[in-house]
Amino acid sequence: MLAFEVAEYKERIRKVKESMSEKGIDVLLITDPANMNYLTGYDGWSFYVHQMLILMMDAEEPIWVGRGQDGNGAKMTTWLKDENIMSYTDDYIQSLTKHPMEFVAGIVKEKGKGNQVIGVEMEAYYFTAKCFERLQASLPNATLKDATLLINWVRVIKSEQEIAYIRKATRIVEKAMQVAVDSLGSGIRECDVAANIFHAQISGTEEYGGDYCSIIPLIPSGERTRSAHLSWDTDRRYEKGDQVNLELAACYKRYHSPLARTAIVGKPADRLIAISETVIEGIGNALAAVKPGLICEEVEEVWRKTIAKSGFIKDSRIGYSMGLNYPPDWGEHTASFRPGDKTVLKPNMTFHMIPGIWMDDIGFEVSQTFRVTGNGCEIFSDFPRKLFVKD
Amino acid sequence: MLAFEVAEYKERIRKVKESMSEKGIDVLLITDPANMNYLTGYDGWSFYVHQMLILMMDAEEPIWVGRGQDGNGAKMTTWLKDENIMSYTDDYIQSLTKHPMEFVAGIVKEKGKGNQVIGVEMEAYYFTAKCFERLQASLPNATLKDATLLINWVRVIKSEQEIAYIRKATRIVEKAMQVAVDSLGSGIRECDVAANIFHAQISGTEEYGGDYCSIIPLIPSGERTRSAHLSWDTDRRYEKGDQVNLELAACYKRYHSPLARTAIVGKPADRLIAISETVIEGIGNALAAVKPGLICEEVEEVWRKTIAKSGFIKDSRIGYSMGLNYPPDWGEHTASFRPGDKTVLKPNMTFHMIPGIWMDDIGFEVSQTFRVTGNGCEIFSDFPRKLFVKD
Repeated sequence: MLAFEVAEYKERIRKVKESMSEKGIDVLLITDPANMNYLTGYDGWSFYVHQMLILMMDAEEPIWVGRGQDGNGAKMTTWLKDENIMSYTDDYIQSLTKHPMEFVAGIVKEKGKGNQVIGVEMEAYYFTAKCFERLQASLPNATLKDATLLINWVRVIKSEQEIAYIRKATRIVEKAMQVAVDSLGSGIRECDVAANIFHAQISGTEEYGGDYCSIIPLIPSGERTRSAHLSWDTDRRYEKGDQVNLELAACYKRYHSPLARTAIVGKPADRLIAISETVIEGIGNALAAVKPGLICEEVEEVWRKTIAKSGFIKDSRIGYSMGLNYPPDWGEHTASFRPGDKTVLKPNMTFHMIPGIWMDDIGFEVSQTFRVTGNGCEIFSDFPRKLFVKD
Repeated sequence: MLAFEVAEYKERIRKVKESMSEKGIDVLLITDPANMNYLTGYDGWSFYVHQMLILMMDAEEPIWVGRGQDGNGAKMTTWLKDENIMSYTDDYIQSLTKHPMEFVAGIVKEKGKGNQVIGVEMEAYYFTAKCFERLQASLPNATLKDATLLINWVRVIKSEQEIAYIRKATRIVEKAMQVAVDSLGSGIRECDVAANIFHAQISGTEEYGGDYCSIIPLIPSGERTRSAHLSWDTDRRYEKGDQVNLELAACYKRYHSPLARTAIVGKPADRLIAISETVIEGIGNALAAVKPGLICEEVEEVWRKTIAKSGFIKDSRIGYSMGLNYPPDWGEHTASFRPGDKTVLKPNMTFHMIPGIWMDDIGFEVSQTFRVTGNGCEIFSDFPRKLFVKD
């Protein structure tokens, strides 16, 4: 059931330990579910309770720590020896008197690491302020050190197998986007289009199915397109003139391929056509510029210079590194295409470039997922890059 | 577009302020997306970046703080005055030099509250250790106090409108469960059953559609049923003899109605039948015992005594308060049916009772969502409570 050869997981651990060593970290406590999966294969919707990997410099395998009823899941989905699956009893769950981090600290101390330098992911979604407080209190002789993104940076360059999964996800997202465009129309319920998209994302292709995505389909319509991150309205039907933003992805073995397009039900206004042409020219130029050795902010600069003449303004980043992930985000929180980001592009980095513009009256977005190659980039999907008009 | 009358939101704020006053909190910083929605109506998939409500004792409305591109969404989905929507620029996003909590602290200080008692949700999913660290550093004269679950406890008793939404979600989850049971069969792909469930959850009924749920359909099969929180296998078809756990929900206006059942493809083993009879008798007795005035651990005790004679053991809680929520959980993290929980049942509390048993070789689960009434409970769904055999 493992998505990768054990050797690949071990190579990842080697790289992570290299980074730990550079940073003077003896023990790494890993909360980010994507990072847990990256090193062990662990896969379950259990991140809503506290869980963790303990990676000690001098141990070959990490230790998985989680809730009792998820221990079997860890045994089934990881390559770890059973002795490295340690689960806590259910009275730790949402308790006012006990905290799972006390259980984690107990293991750290038992392993003789209670006085060492311990890395924690201070900014990982599920590493709450309380987690840190309980670890501090339970490990008074340890030095806790911020190790946010340590593993995420190792994840930035993908293996051939990881790229293969993103390509498989791409085949699914193309189907889902086509279903979305085909389903749209005046008088159609927004929820029915959303339902069709979900169906396509999960039923996948004839050869393989899809996983759940880390973000739901974001398909706002009408005035709701003026904001990012809104979605369908459960009670509304599309009306003539509605613009619909379609920001979707598909996922395979937890690897994502996002894809965004914009559609209009009815005739597009001149202003929408103008924005769409600007954005499509901008993304085209930015993608054409991508090559190893360039730095991230230079990619953004190509975009910014292209759209400057149009008068439209985009004040947010136009893309980010992505791949393996769990809700609530498919982004990796590492490299971004924005001013100030000095990350050097290297082969097999994978990005979602999404230069959406949202004005107060109108918005337009288009995106492509790609990998950096030896001399440029491979754009995963050739789904038409245009404004979709459903008249 | 508001899901409730403004008066209802204001009444919620009154209750929250009452609790703040009891706890000596002057300013409450609210991270939990469900709590943000509860007080303002705010609804967007934007919790993957930092956002917050600032509720000051002496202000009528909370202040929404979030990312620039989500500000329009806050204006559209909340009842707040535009002046109380405050957004930060995009260079705060996943930055190594700036943090959104510094922006939040700036507002707190500007409002003259920098030296007051400030409540924070230490154990809320998206309130990271880094958030707390940045707040502490930016508000050196404030007293930060743990206010985890303060609002969640106010949410425990539902209004008539909230109950109406849960009833609507129940109609959807019944359809989704029927679709699941109908779709199952030997040779069928697991992903296709999952896709059909998602489709039913979102397309809803003829009268209204569904929202995304806070947890994906958890539908492990075969040996994967030995663990909680696994789901479909993208590459697998059901085989004769597979057991399938179906833990689903539906959601309307962010209110959930979960429902779990167990099915078998082929003939059930005697041991599975025995577990199923035990669990079904147990849940029946526990539900029959529910009435206002009882305490939560007494409900669990009824269950435990019922199953004691069977020899099966269940060492985790058998249910929890639920309703409004966002990923990754639909539970409210307040009252649970488990030993030690002294919460007194009151009318219009809503619970998901799910006494699943997972042994090393086999598992079975069945659940009901209900509300406490004046003299017992209203079980929302009358979906048959049995082992579903798909021979």
